[in-house]
Amino acid sequence: MVRIGIDLGGTNIAAGVVTDDGKILHHVETPTRAERPWQPVVEDMIAVTKRALSESGHSVDDLQSIGVGVPGLAINGVVAFCTNLGWHDVPLEETFRAAIDKPLYIDNDANVAGLAEAMAGVSAGVPNSVFLTLGTGLGGGIIINKKIYTGAHGVGGELGHLTFIADGEMCTCGKRGCLERYASATGMIRLGCEAMRTHPHSGLAKAANQDSANMTAKLIVDQAKANDPTAMMVFDQYIHYLAQGINSIISFIDPDMIVLGGGVSKAGEFLLDAVRQALPTYIFYKTLPFPSIELAVLGNDAGIIGAAMLGA
Amino acid sequence: MVRIGIDLGGTNIAAGVVTDDGKILHHVETPTRAERPWQPVVEDMIAVTKRALSESGHSVDDLQSIGVGVPGLAINGVVAFCTNLGWHDVPLEETFRAAIDKPLYIDNDANVAGLAEAMAGVSAGVPNSVFLTLGTGLGGGIIINKKIYTGAHGVGGELGHLTFIADGEMCTCGKRGCLERYASATGMIRLGCEAMRTHPHSGLAKAANQDSANMTAKLIVDQAKANDPTAMMVFDQYIHYLAQGINSIISFIDPDMIVLGGGVSKAGEFLLDAVRQALPTYIFYKTLPFPSIELAVLGNDAGIIGAAMLGA
Repeated sequence: MVRIGIDLGGTNIAAGVVTDDGKILHHVETPTRAERPWQPVVEDMIAVTKRALSESGHSVDDLQSIGVGVPGLAINGVVAFCTNLGWHDVPLEETFRAAIDKPLYIDNDANVAGLAEAMAGVSAGVPNSVFLTLGTGLGGGIIINKKIYTGAHGVGGELGHLTFIADGEMCTCGKRGCLERYASATGMIRLGCEAMRTHPHSGLAKAANQDSANMTAKLIVDQAKANDPTAMMVFDQYIHYLAQGINSIISFIDPDMIVLGGGVSKAGEFLLDAVRQALPTYIFYKTLPFPSIELAVLGNDAGIIGAAMLGA
Repeated sequence: MVRIGIDLGGTNIAAGVVTDDGKILHHVETPTRAERPWQPVVEDMIAVTKRALSESGHSVDDLQSIGVGVPGLAINGVVAFCTNLGWHDVPLEETFRAAIDKPLYIDNDANVAGLAEAMAGVSAGVPNSVFLTLGTGLGGGIIINKKIYTGAHGVGGELGHLTFIADGEMCTCGKRGCLERYASATGMIRLGCEAMRTHPHSGLAKAANQDSANMTAKLIVDQAKANDPTAMMVFDQYIHYLAQGINSIISFIDPDMIVLGGGVSKAGEFLLDAVRQALPTYIFYKTLPFPSIELAVLGNDAGIIGAAMLGA
């Protein structure tokens, strides 16, 4: 018996045939073409599911469950919101089961990635973990006793939208000062652009060719690694924010482990060392143990593995 | 069979004989005299326990468990920190059981009050709730499936120390910008004192006799109720902060209910109406259900009831 995990992204639909211990046996992809209505997108999700099964020598009878990670919010089998795809109240479970009548599970992509790491990745050894995707936004996945925890109404785990600097930067959610504005890749890029304006002759400004459009988290990290003082200042300020955000997670639910994923986490040990060094400054109970901070290890596979694990 | 709940405060030790459904049968108190070493304080806790039992016609044989709520942190039967009492690594369980050999449970006072409300108070009807004490500090009690949740290392639930305005007001914890600095009674008083300086002829300033030492949350609330514009401005700013703090709790773990207790909650419906009116502005998923906000109902009894319920 196998499971199917589908990672529904803004660019690609990726489906994988996954074993119960989280190994991907076969993997297929097709473009999402998100500008289309939801119906043909879901048809393509069904098609890649069938293709992944048949190409790996399995039939629908071998299938225990299907899981889907969506960049949005799903409640009771319906995708309530999926902003990047323009989805609103899409009856995904009903539509899918009309084609393949197997149990279907849907969850947010950050939750799904957190579950993947908790089942088959870096946090596999602990019951409780929090996964942070440090990307364009800041997503959170809370895992308690190896299950995704989204609360009583399914609206929890939105860690990017904790108020971090009340009345601060305007957020895409309509509120000001959300953690996402400071501790995501977008937050680091904003700091980088500000520093480029005040330090136009810095290595950072030169590397970006004085153009905000060229500013990326990777460019900042690369320049900080190369000891450009302006990039180092930007990176330190970013760590100052991220470490405080991590400390808030600890003071709130104190998981066994906090896992860093998403684009910024590609900075690897350079990021991890900086976070681990800064964090103790902010810890409330300074003499007591606190969660370990680790890098995600499953990379892009997390979306498929975690989606498949939704049914496990 | 009955349980004993002990509320260890900086001023009084209160012990109650409590039934399994959270009713206090008998209640005794003695001064804490916190300036003493911990040993005589614990002796007095043991003495009031015995007195409460005998005065209510019970013997130690009738006793199922003893619970203690402390204004600090307890781990494995040891009170690791209890700043107001000057306690550090006090072996409370061991000392207590040498005198009365019954199961002893110890937890933080905000957690205990949250448990009391969840077992016998306003949140009795829901599995998951978060209790906020809005007092000198801001304490949190997270209840998941009717149990106190303090995380993997026991350092969670410190909701007063979430970063709320990074690099903002200095906190007693050594960090800047903690939620406690803005959404506690102390936070409201600070706003009141600032407003008194800029509006020296306001009703608020007159009511405080132009003296910061007279500024209290009650005075601000009373003046706001009396429509003094300065006090209303202060109160609105406080609600702006508190509602954002509450929204962060929702975005994090989305409980069924958030319960407001502590000194500021004595403002009653005036506070509750204001919070409920402000909250939807900050909610992330504006069209979805979110937790109800309620006032604590057990008042001072929460400490005894919740402590007793630790063993239930």
